[in-house]
Amino acid sequence: MEGLFITFEGPEGAGKTTILQKLGKELQDEGLDIVMTREPGGIRIAEQIREVILNKSNTEMDSRTEALLYAAARRQHLVERVLPALEKGATVLCDRFIDSSLAYQGFARGIGIDEVFAINQFAIKDVMPDATIYFDVPVEIGLQRIQENKGREVNRLDLEKLDFHHRVYEGFKLLKEKFPNRFHQIDASREIDQVYQAVKETILKIIQGK
Amino acid sequence: MEGLFITFEGPEGAGKTTILQKLGKELQDEGLDIVMTREPGGIRIAEQIREVILNKSNTEMDSRTEALLYAAARRQHLVERVLPALEKGATVLCDRFIDSSLAYQGFARGIGIDEVFAINQFAIKDVMPDATIYFDVPVEIGLQRIQENKGREVNRLDLEKLDFHHRVYEGFKLLKEKFPNRFHQIDASREIDQVYQAVKETILKIIQGK
Repeated sequence: MEGLFITFEGPEGAGKTTILQKLGKELQDEGLDIVMTREPGGIRIAEQIREVILNKSNTEMDSRTEALLYAAARRQHLVERVLPALEKGATVLCDRFIDSSLAYQGFARGIGIDEVFAINQFAIKDVMPDATIYFDVPVEIGLQRIQENKGREVNRLDLEKLDFHHRVYEGFKLLKEKFPNRFHQIDASREIDQVYQAVKETILKIIQGK
Repeated sequence: MEGLFITFEGPEGAGKTTILQKLGKELQDEGLDIVMTREPGGIRIAEQIREVILNKSNTEMDSRTEALLYAAARRQHLVERVLPALEKGATVLCDRFIDSSLAYQGFARGIGIDEVFAINQFAIKDVMPDATIYFDVPVEIGLQRIQENKGREVNRLDLEKLDFHHRVYEGFKLLKEKFPNRFHQIDASREIDQVYQAVKETILKIIQGK
């Protein structure tokens, strides 16, 4: 595999998506071969799977069904989008990947990180990210940003939902301990410009160190 | 778990579906608590997943994506249909289950039986069938029956397709060796009435031996 596979991970409202798009564009303008993507990424089969996952009327969905569907969509996106880019030598920046499944389904939903890891191993075979930019932001700050971004009033905190986000955060902390070499932690509680600079420096170091 | 979970497995054209429906009805008429089902079995989410799997325009589907989707549909059908019936003490007759994935995706498509078993273990947890009626029929006889059933002329044998069906058959033979206590082999090359009687006797013995 010629290229470099870098994933962006972290809880909601950490700034991942905004920074990935802006930074990817900037690095492209500087002449680097960058591919920006996220699941399902316009891949037809992955989009169809995503529709089943996100269909609001599917309230009876079992959490193991959900985890298997995420793994299926991941597989197809990997095969059609990520692997061809890596084979051409590009640096792929991917918004969320296996660690989100481990934190959300594995830890927060209580299935177990190791079990969710196993089905994702089936999906990705040995294509683990070369590096993961981990956006560390306290749950309350992240949620507040989401609410402010959408121009909504700050809603009454749904306690169960807040608890779920706390479990996601705990899950990511466990993953950081499990993958210390792959995880590059960024303090994402700062102003977005500072976070942007920190991510840029980290990624340039990873590319140079390749 | 109070009930009894019996699956029907085997290659195409073995008579599984016809016999399951007829026998299930006969046993119900004799007063037994029988639930007849097959995946996706009218379970909304499983039907949606099945649509993605069977969509003829999805020719780019990776075989691991397909295996994960089958496991996802299986999970949801199990949770919504099979487990509630078993908890009420019914005998569930299910047309195809985990062994079809092991024979078709695991062996015939070359992913590997153990790998496909692992993701199915995630899907079913410990709910393996109590017994599996294995319809043993030579590939050519099975395919001929399918063609005759549909009133078609016997088509030119597509060699690759035939080869695939042979691998499926080999896969089932391996599974029979792997699960000798669970697999109850029926010679399904005989006339359908004879096969029916053999299946009925086998199932009544299983129910009585419970």
